[in-house]
Amino acid sequence: MLTPPTVAVIGGGQLARMMQESAVALGINLRALVEASDGSTGQVTVDKAVGEPADLDAVRALIDGADVLTFEHEHIPAPTMEEAARLVSVQPPASALLYAQDKLAMRERLTEMGIPCPAWACVEDEAQLAEFGATIGWPLIVKTPRGGYDGHGVAVAHSPADVSSWWGNGLLLAEALVPFTGEVAALLARTPSGEIASWPVASTVQIDGVCAEVTAPAAGIRPETAAEAQRIGERIASELGVTGVLAVEMFVVGEGADERVLVNELAMRPHNTGHWTIDGAVTSQFEQHLRAVLDLPLGSTQLRAPGTHVVMVNLLGSSHAQPARALAAAFAAGGTGAKVHLYGKEVRPGRKLGHVTVVDADPALALERARAAVNALKGETPTS
Amino acid sequence: MLTPPTVAVIGGGQLARMMQESAVALGINLRALVEASDGSTGQVTVDKAVGEPADLDAVRALIDGADVLTFEHEHIPAPTMEEAARLVSVQPPASALLYAQDKLAMRERLTEMGIPCPAWACVEDEAQLAEFGATIGWPLIVKTPRGGYDGHGVAVAHSPADVSSWWGNGLLLAEALVPFTGEVAALLARTPSGEIASWPVASTVQIDGVCAEVTAPAAGIRPETAAEAQRIGERIASELGVTGVLAVEMFVVGEGADERVLVNELAMRPHNTGHWTIDGAVTSQFEQHLRAVLDLPLGSTQLRAPGTHVVMVNLLGSSHAQPARALAAAFAAGGTGAKVHLYGKEVRPGRKLGHVTVVDADPALALERARAAVNALKGETPTS
Repeated sequence: MLTPPTVAVIGGGQLARMMQESAVALGINLRALVEASDGSTGQVTVDKAVGEPADLDAVRALIDGADVLTFEHEHIPAPTMEEAARLVSVQPPASALLYAQDKLAMRERLTEMGIPCPAWACVEDEAQLAEFGATIGWPLIVKTPRGGYDGHGVAVAHSPADVSSWWGNGLLLAEALVPFTGEVAALLARTPSGEIASWPVASTVQIDGVCAEVTAPAAGIRPETAAEAQRIGERIASELGVTGVLAVEMFVVGEGADERVLVNELAMRPHNTGHWTIDGAVTSQFEQHLRAVLDLPLGSTQLRAPGTHVVMVNLLGSSHAQPARALAAAFAAGGTGAKVHLYGKEVRPGRKLGHVTVVDADPALALERARAAVNALKGETPTS
Repeated sequence: MLTPPTVAVIGGGQLARMMQESAVALGINLRALVEASDGSTGQVTVDKAVGEPADLDAVRALIDGADVLTFEHEHIPAPTMEEAARLVSVQPPASALLYAQDKLAMRERLTEMGIPCPAWACVEDEAQLAEFGATIGWPLIVKTPRGGYDGHGVAVAHSPADVSSWWGNGLLLAEALVPFTGEVAALLARTPSGEIASWPVASTVQIDGVCAEVTAPAAGIRPETAAEAQRIGERIASELGVTGVLAVEMFVVGEGADERVLVNELAMRPHNTGHWTIDGAVTSQFEQHLRAVLDLPLGSTQLRAPGTHVVMVNLLGSSHAQPARALAAAFAAGGTGAKVHLYGKEVRPGRKLGHVTVVDADPALALERARAAVNALKGETPTS
């Protein structure tokens, strides 16, 4: 028997785990380089090895016989990208992934393209930061260009003293603290052949830099704003040569006819703001990512049930040692339409352990039910 | 960390494989006793052992620490059922599974319950078969009470001579050849606590005893007939004490106000006539089976998109050595809404290798697209 298409993936968290759900359905072999054999992805993949993205021998073994190499996170060293590209199709390619790895490179490139971003500056010392602050005002945001995630590597600085310990590891990105009225995410997939398919833009709620709740289509913004967000996402994908799933997180600013978006972050992989697509869209972001990196035709990004709203709530930490033992409570609390997803991860405070999605014509009801199911998984009594 | 709920399953085909897709999403551990480590289920489950259902040592190892034992087929020896029941919750229990294992026991029980079945007789020799044929006419159907599937163990007999080689292995079931106008399947799940949830009744097309196409909700029958089919399914589940998914295949006979159903077969597990629920219903039969056997609250069985039709077409055999290598052609042929499912099985003529589901308001269009995708996976040029 010929082998099925094999997608090699670096990373063993919940994103590769959810790719595996789609790979199983499609008859695609997902081969994962994971952090731990019994981690979120390792629990559910047979074809796996334990190793670091920097381990070139491990990466060469991973891509041996694979059709394509892709990623569930951006923290891939340049030598790995170079060696892999010599041997196999790498999607997204290093030339695109750079802009999800390096926030300074991203800000420079998007600004050159004329894409609206918060006011920003590349600062190399306290004096430059003080100068930027004097121009745009305090407080402002300081970010490490590389390695941040879920609020890590990001600080609100009320003065240069707040980040005095951050110097010495290279340049920092300073940005205006945007007085946003909301946040949205544009989500799309692009194939190496250039086909693009965008899902409806979603609204998101972040708490302490971590995605907490997502509603699709986006709640509380003008249709023109959503359309503009989608256009920006598609332009970034095309001009940067992104392949696979691209998520563009944006701030919404201004009111009425002045409402507009500013790009916050890019992610080139399935993203937390797109988990709603598993239950809410004809094609999930995980299936679409596999199709895109294999250069297969893309699937429909429409809502499964037109006219409904899809609400996703994250499970962040739990007082249960094993949240899957609270499934009965979650289903009882969330109603018969609550779709529960658990990642098989060990519980730690605030850790992303799962999510719940509810589809309903009434977004407030969907949110209430999803929150109730998540509270049951957290072991919290519902707040009325 | 406490272990997650563990569902032990006997069988390593596509049904346990699709249970695993749902188990991964729910954070449930599926532990499978499979025919081959690299078979349809073995490819996608980490927690597995190779063994036969009759191997009591293998079964004891399978259920050690599991919350429940269930099955993806009915061919479970009585000693295995007995030993397992001593050690763990077994769902469905032997007292119910009997009626899916033994067609004579099923006919006797349903007839006692007053549930409409084709005219039938238990025959132990040629003379008894000849007598039954003289009463109801030839041709008629002869079935082995146990071990049949997908048209195996079933024959159309035009005279006793057609099954002369079948004697010597015990009783046979003889049934009238029903002049049906269509076939439907009632699909439901029941928990040990007695909760029942029925999906919309589906219409099915069988070719040579093998399920070929399914449409939900059922096409071409009266709403009263569908409601009667559902009531019969629920009555069977309650009175026989079925747990997990129950599929009841039925013939539709009569016209207009005389239209009614006769029960053909029972299956106590996810069933081919329910594959449409993966993409078409809020809760798939695979997720629901896991929830039911674990005695969790059941999920909604409504269509994801009310007012649509869901069409499923089986991939039976292929001229491709590896159908997953034809995914590009399948997506191109089936359109952006075609949901392709491949089972990772080695190709053999007529073998169930996968299925394609399409949801659309227009059932004819959905059928056309699903067939086109299946034809691409088969390597056949479309017939116009």
